[in-house]
Amino acid sequence: MRPEADPFTERTPRVVAARHLTRRQGRDKAGRFLVEGAQAVREALAWRNGEVHELFVTATAAERNAELLQTASAAGIRISEVTDKAAASLSETVTPQGLIAVCDAVPQPLDQALAGSPRLVAVLYGVSDPGNAGTVTRVADAAGADAVIFAGDTVDPHNGKCVRASTGSLFHLPIARSRDAAEVFAACRQAGLKLVAADGYAKDDLVEASAKGDLAQPTAWVFGSEAHGLPDDVLAQLDTSLKVPLYGAAESLNLATAAAVCLYASARDQRS
Amino acid sequence: MRPEADPFTERTPRVVAARHLTRRQGRDKAGRFLVEGAQAVREALAWRNGEVHELFVTATAAERNAELLQTASAAGIRISEVTDKAAASLSETVTPQGLIAVCDAVPQPLDQALAGSPRLVAVLYGVSDPGNAGTVTRVADAAGADAVIFAGDTVDPHNGKCVRASTGSLFHLPIARSRDAAEVFAACRQAGLKLVAADGYAKDDLVEASAKGDLAQPTAWVFGSEAHGLPDDVLAQLDTSLKVPLYGAAESLNLATAAAVCLYASARDQRS
Repeated sequence: MRPEADPFTERTPRVVAARHLTRRQGRDKAGRFLVEGAQAVREALAWRNGEVHELFVTATAAERNAELLQTASAAGIRISEVTDKAAASLSETVTPQGLIAVCDAVPQPLDQALAGSPRLVAVLYGVSDPGNAGTVTRVADAAGADAVIFAGDTVDPHNGKCVRASTGSLFHLPIARSRDAAEVFAACRQAGLKLVAADGYAKDDLVEASAKGDLAQPTAWVFGSEAHGLPDDVLAQLDTSLKVPLYGAAESLNLATAAAVCLYASARDQRS
Repeated sequence: MRPEADPFTERTPRVVAARHLTRRQGRDKAGRFLVEGAQAVREALAWRNGEVHELFVTATAAERNAELLQTASAAGIRISEVTDKAAASLSETVTPQGLIAVCDAVPQPLDQALAGSPRLVAVLYGVSDPGNAGTVTRVADAAGADAVIFAGDTVDPHNGKCVRASTGSLFHLPIARSRDAAEVFAACRQAGLKLVAADGYAKDDLVEASAKGDLAQPTAWVFGSEAHGLPDDVLAQLDTSLKVPLYGAAESLNLATAAAVCLYASARDQRS
């Protein structure tokens, strides 16, 4: 902290530079992104696969998060006080929390994210809703998945809503991304994973597949967007398709709840 | 439809009366609620446990939903054209869909919702987020649950966001509600259901419980709010607590994904 100096304003060059990270283009160029709020910043500080480069904090947020700032300071991270207006200019939330970290981008190269012998991987294909992508990342983490891959025209994992919905999980397990879905599928196969589409229109359901022992195999579950599911040309590239059985009158599950059922079914069978 | 008459405005008495249903107090008093949009209205028209009393539709929405209006008309339901402004005054969404039905309230008496020999029931306790309540209702429907019960200080199932998140499931299975949670738990026991808390802090997890055959029993899963979980005095009234195992580094699952894992674990064991 620089108690002696005036707080940075929204026009201070370092704040202006950080503000570029509120847009995907700026993030892609810098290879960095913004993490907001005490919980997420704490996760970022504990993260092993990347670094926090600097912290911006309002006077009010500094008071509330003294311990966290001590941790950051002890780690040699530059901490700058900013005005409320500057903090708001870096925030994507309606009620800015006054605490923002500049972090390394989370994705790793595909082969690195899939290194070792992964048993359970979640692939998001064409998922445009950032809240859904973040929630599936959280579920994958909870289910003990080895990696989450953002494939094709899927939302940026650094999107503020995705970061928030992941509640820190973006920092817990390897994340990779590639616009080239075929490359993702090839890398998964190379890593020994069976590619299974989660598809509401599939002939077979995952309870039957589980009973046959199919889910105990190393599996990459591929999830499509809530609105459109997985297109036929993607389904054709995968090894099989399974649906979550609908026992009642509901026509479908939403993406996150379907992913929870799929990933936990595999996690259970792989551990039993 | 009344093509010969002027469309109702937001000041037409029937529209004014319907507008009272946008508030919980008005709904409770009238025993009716508003359902918006083609999908939800279609579900309401097909509903067996209550009636649609009238439909309000804008000229634009009438063109788009001719078939649905024919179905309603054939069923003797009063259909009135309304201005865009009147439709907006009945809508809780940012982009009103111009089609609103006045329906009977969905809850049935507890003993009726739990009639027969229910095997799987979802109880929401103190869930204040309407989107969560609606999504859990959708998941319960998908998992083939026999009823959903809104207990204690839980959101009104007729809240517009809850209705939308349920994507029609409110009309698919019996819904009950009671502010008196003890009454709900007693009714569940009376119906032969074991009361199981979904509790992230529980000692035992549901995969172990499943392996022991515990989830094959008739079960009422009790879910608390995402922020606060279930309070101790509620946990003390239940038969047991189970957590969803967290295999990775995530601290928790959100309510809807946790409910999906719990309800599908029971559904699977009860059907195998």
